[in-house]
Amino acid sequence: MPTIAVIAPGAMGSAIGARLVEHGARVLTSLEGRGAASRERAAAAGMIDADTAELVAADILLSIVPPADAEALARRLAPALAAAPRKPVYVDANAVSPGTIARIAAIVSETGAPFLDGAILGLPPKPGAKGPRVYVSGADTAPALVLRELGLDLRVCPGAVGAASSLKMSYAGLNKGLTALAAIMILAAEHTGAGPALLDELAENEPALLARFAQALPDMAPKAYRWAPEMGEIADFLGPDAAGRQVFSGYADLYERLAADAGKPEIAALIRFAAAAAER
Amino acid sequence: MPTIAVIAPGAMGSAIGARLVEHGARVLTSLEGRGAASRERAAAAGMIDADTAELVAADILLSIVPPADAEALARRLAPALAAAPRKPVYVDANAVSPGTIARIAAIVSETGAPFLDGAILGLPPKPGAKGPRVYVSGADTAPALVLRELGLDLRVCPGAVGAASSLKMSYAGLNKGLTALAAIMILAAEHTGAGPALLDELAENEPALLARFAQALPDMAPKAYRWAPEMGEIADFLGPDAAGRQVFSGYADLYERLAADAGKPEIAALIRFAAAAAER
Repeated sequence: MPTIAVIAPGAMGSAIGARLVEHGARVLTSLEGRGAASRERAAAAGMIDADTAELVAADILLSIVPPADAEALARRLAPALAAAPRKPVYVDANAVSPGTIARIAAIVSETGAPFLDGAILGLPPKPGAKGPRVYVSGADTAPALVLRELGLDLRVCPGAVGAASSLKMSYAGLNKGLTALAAIMILAAEHTGAGPALLDELAENEPALLARFAQALPDMAPKAYRWAPEMGEIADFLGPDAAGRQVFSGYADLYERLAADAGKPEIAALIRFAAAAAER
Repeated sequence: MPTIAVIAPGAMGSAIGARLVEHGARVLTSLEGRGAASRERAAAAGMIDADTAELVAADILLSIVPPADAEALARRLAPALAAAPRKPVYVDANAVSPGTIARIAAIVSETGAPFLDGAILGLPPKPGAKGPRVYVSGADTAPALVLRELGLDLRVCPGAVGAASSLKMSYAGLNKGLTALAAIMILAAEHTGAGPALLDELAENEPALLARFAQALPDMAPKAYRWAPEMGEIADFLGPDAAGRQVFSGYADLYERLAADAGKPEIAALIRFAAAAAER
């Protein structure tokens, strides 16, 4: 029975953990410093609290944390990884830029542990439903294939460390960028009184986009605080593309504003528009 | 038989002119300083070359020019409009921000001519096919309704001068912003080797978006030079939304770069991606 360490038991981590447990894996996590919600999620998923020495003794260690924490986690685990007699395969599955993943790869590789770039595309798996796609890229992806037998939709992304992250950045950038664009234009239309006319136009001429916005805007509202730094990672990813960097810095500013939206008038306007759109 | 002046005989102006002629209107235009292509388009459409005094004697004067030329056209026609014994209804149908339309409205109103804000949503009409939507907003839209009998899909946008332009800015911002976003992410994916994986992901999980990109990217390539200033107008339109302004300035820079793309390697990469997408 393979042992998989999943750090941390957030919404995605615990859902992935639950699926691995269902398929017979022993799943460890770290509850050190985590709140009651994480403890409940981990317990419900059948994940076992473990100390650092136990975590680095797993067969595979999956890092699933907020993008801003990905490098710090690798640094924190590095001494224990270096000391471990048998190293796990360290898979960083976070939405980080290829530059960040290169730094994390360097930290982990120095400990002697094999490293894979990873990317999760799609929403957390729900019981019985299809899960997200989990991509890995790197020198030797074979040790990660056991995750496929453990219920994950594991796919190999051709290329070196950085390829899976690039795929994630591109795909997430399209999806979350489109939602940001929708928010910008709908707020502007509402602000100038053209909101109802825009809704009519979209219903008549862009029904697929409108249906997407009806779902995506309410889904975004509680996640804007997370998406802001993710847009920043994508801006980094765009490297030499100054125009693209500017666009994604703007998306990051927008999501930051929406997350902080005092009294939430902008969020309320977007939810109203989405509700009217859902009725078309 | 109503007389409609359509300035200028560009792709949109001449296609609108042809439809008006088909429906029995006498359609005037100005060929002063225009090249051979415009002269041919105007002749094919059945539009009649006219001097300024004749143009301002029309029942309706439609301004359909590049956004950057809209205000200059109003200034150029203002003396003749002021001198005209019977003024036409001046409809500015250009993709300009509400700030720009307010300046144009002031210039025209000072001549005593009635002014309407206008907006054209959709592609130039083709013979036999449904045309674009032509919106008007302003104090008295009744005189524009004759355009409906002359074959245009004329619609009244509720609100004052500025409402039709706001609708246009929002709708065009969504459409052309989405194409810019697609170009940014596809170029980044291609640059990092994740292009084929992104194509597979979209084909499996976002087929409607992928089909849209397959059409929109090749369509954009020859228009990027026009879309760059239009994105700038939309940035102006966004006024107090600093994040949105930043996003649209980035789109403007992107389209400017694509328009100037020496040797066109970026355009070529986008066209290749679109062709592969069309095969899915």
